[in-house]
Amino acid sequence: MTTLSFYLYKIEVDPPKPGEVRIKIISSGICGTDKHILEGKDKVPLPAILGHEGAGIVESIGEGVTSVKPGDKVLMFPVPECRECSSCLHPKGNFCLKEKVIPPTGLMLDGTSRFTCRGRKIYHLYGTSTFTEYTVVHEIAVGKIDDGAPMDRVCIISCGVPTGFGAVFNTVTPGSTCVVFGLGGIGSAVVMACKASGASRIIGVDINEEKFPWARDLGVTDCLNPQKLEKPVQEVVVEMTGNGVDFAFEAIGLIDTMVGALESCHPSYGVCVIIGVAPSNSQLIFDPLLLLSGRILKGGAVGGKDSIPKLVTDYMEKKINTDPLITHKFPFKSINKAFELFQAGHW
Amino acid sequence: MTTLSFYLYKIEVDPPKPGEVRIKIISSGICGTDKHILEGKDKVPLPAILGHEGAGIVESIGEGVTSVKPGDKVLMFPVPECRECSSCLHPKGNFCLKEKVIPPTGLMLDGTSRFTCRGRKIYHLYGTSTFTEYTVVHEIAVGKIDDGAPMDRVCIISCGVPTGFGAVFNTVTPGSTCVVFGLGGIGSAVVMACKASGASRIIGVDINEEKFPWARDLGVTDCLNPQKLEKPVQEVVVEMTGNGVDFAFEAIGLIDTMVGALESCHPSYGVCVIIGVAPSNSQLIFDPLLLLSGRILKGGAVGGKDSIPKLVTDYMEKKINTDPLITHKFPFKSINKAFELFQAGHW
Repeated sequence: MTTLSFYLYKIEVDPPKPGEVRIKIISSGICGTDKHILEGKDKVPLPAILGHEGAGIVESIGEGVTSVKPGDKVLMFPVPECRECSSCLHPKGNFCLKEKVIPPTGLMLDGTSRFTCRGRKIYHLYGTSTFTEYTVVHEIAVGKIDDGAPMDRVCIISCGVPTGFGAVFNTVTPGSTCVVFGLGGIGSAVVMACKASGASRIIGVDINEEKFPWARDLGVTDCLNPQKLEKPVQEVVVEMTGNGVDFAFEAIGLIDTMVGALESCHPSYGVCVIIGVAPSNSQLIFDPLLLLSGRILKGGAVGGKDSIPKLVTDYMEKKINTDPLITHKFPFKSINKAFELFQAGHW
Repeated sequence: MTTLSFYLYKIEVDPPKPGEVRIKIISSGICGTDKHILEGKDKVPLPAILGHEGAGIVESIGEGVTSVKPGDKVLMFPVPECRECSSCLHPKGNFCLKEKVIPPTGLMLDGTSRFTCRGRKIYHLYGTSTFTEYTVVHEIAVGKIDDGAPMDRVCIISCGVPTGFGAVFNTVTPGSTCVVFGLGGIGSAVVMACKASGASRIIGVDINEEKFPWARDLGVTDCLNPQKLEKPVQEVVVEMTGNGVDFAFEAIGLIDTMVGALESCHPSYGVCVIIGVAPSNSQLIFDPLLLLSGRILKGGAVGGKDSIPKLVTDYMEKKINTDPLITHKFPFKSINKAFELFQAGHW
C-alpha cells in the first residue's frame, strides 16, 4: 500500500487576518478521511497540515471577530456555518457553502495560506488543520465550548461524533431495524445514536471481529463479518430482517459497502445514509431500479456552529457519553504510531 | 432502432381463479415503460400483452372476491396493494411486495397465465395487460371508481397521473424551485403537481420544443432544450437558481438525465426524485461526493388501491384536472400508430 507519512517540522503560523482566529491545539482526533489522504485516496493540495477534529484554546483573534476571545476553549469544524449562504439559511441545510470543502482548496477564504515552512507555502485542510501546535481558522469554523470541558475527550465532538449522531437523530425511529457498515469511530457513534433512538435491532458489519464485543457493549445486537459469510452480506441482512432494514448506514467510505448498504434496505421504505467519504473520483454504480420501489439514498456530513458546542454541553451534563469512542491516546509526536494502528484495522 | 410491434390476435382469456377479476377493457393509456419494452430496452417475458394503465368494467369475479362485482367500473394498478405485506403495512410503504414487479414474472401469483393464443401461453405484464379486449387481474390490483367516470379520460389515473402526482405531493413545499426532466405524460403530471404545491419556479427540460408552449400552460416557468445549450443543462439549472433547485424530477428513464437531475439539486438540501424507469440492467453512475453534502436521491413508483380511486373522485369533483395530459385518442386497432407518434418524440 502506498502511504504518506507525517513529518515533524518547525513551521511559521501567521497571525489571524480579519475574521480569523489563531488557536493553540490541545487535542485532536484522527478520522478515516485523514487516513484516506495519507493513503493517497483522497486528493488534497499537498504538502498540508492534516487533522480536522480538534479542541484548542484561542490564542489571538483577527479584526471583527466577536464570537470568541483569547483564552476561550473551542472546537473547530471541518464544515463551517456562515449563517449567510443558501444552505445555512435553509431549515434543512447543513453544509455551509462559504468555504469550498468539495474539492478542498487547502487555502483560507482570501486564497492564501497561514502556514509556511522554510519559506514554502503549506496548505490547510478543510479550513481546520489540527495536527499542529497552532492553527488559524475562520471564525465561522470555530465555536466556544464549556470552560470545564476535558479537551482530550471532547475533541472528537468536532467531527466524528456529530457526523455519526447527526446521521441518526431525526432519522431513526423507535422500534426500527438498522445496519451499520463499519464499526470504527463514526460507525460506533452511529450505533450509540441508533440505540438512543430506540432501534429494536442494530446489525453491525465489520471485517475485524476484535471490534465485536465492544460493538455489542455499545448496542449492536448482531455482528456480521462479510469475510465469513457464504453470500453477500446484504443478502444476509435482508434474510435476517424479512425484507431489509429500515435504516442502513455506511461509515467506511468504500463503494462496495455503499451499494451493499443500499441493497440491505427495505425496497419500499428503506433509507440508506452514506457517511463514509469515498476516495477521490470514485463512482457509485448501481441499478436505478433499486430506487424505483421507494428506497431513499442520502448523504450525511457534519455541520453546525450551534449544534456542536451543544453536544459538548450534553456530554458535560452526562446526557451523552462519547468516552467509549476513545480507544487510544498518544502524544502528538507519536502520531505515525496512531495511524499505523488505524491503518492495520485495529481501530 | 430495433423495435417490436403489436399484432392483433384472437386470444383465449381464461375465467378468473379465486381472488381474481376478469375485466372488459374500455380505455387504456400508453406509457414510456411500454415504449421501452417495445424497443427492447426493458426486458419482460414475451410474447406478452402489454399495457398497464387501463379503465374497464368487471365482467366476472373469482371465488372470494369482495371489493368489486360484475358491472363495476374499475381502474387497474400496475403496483397492487395487498394490505398484508411489510410495505403495505408500513406508513411510508408504497410498493406492495406481494407480486414480483421487479423484474416482472409475466405470470399470475399461482405461476400461470390466463392468456393463450392457438394453445400457446401468452404472458401478462405487471399484473395488468390492458392492450386487450379482456384481461384478468388480481383483486389487489383493481379498484372500483365512480360510476359516472369517463373511461377515456380517467384511464391515465391508473399509472401516469398518480406516479407524477405522488412524486410531488408530500415532497414539494410552497415557494420552492423545481426542475422536471422530460415533459411527456408523467413529466407533465409532475409539473401540474408542482404548480399545485406552490412551487415558485418550475424549469422544464426536453429536447422537443413543440412541447414548450403546452408545458408553459401547465405551469413551467422556464423551458430548456439541452441540445441548444453550450454547457450541460444541469450547470445551467444551477446557475439559474443560484446553487441548484430544491427538487428535481427525472421523468424520462435515461441514466444521463438521472445524473443531470441529481447534479441540478442544491448540494445541501436538494431532493432528486427518479420516476422514469431505466432500461433493464442499467447502471446509475455518479460520484458519491454528490450525496455527502446532503443531497437526497429517491425513487417514486405508483401505488395505492385507496389513493387511485380517490384521484378519480377528485377528478370528477373538479379538484384536479388531468385532461391536458391527454394529447391524442386512437381506436384500439390503431395502437401501432399511437406508438409511432410516441417513439418519434411527438408526445
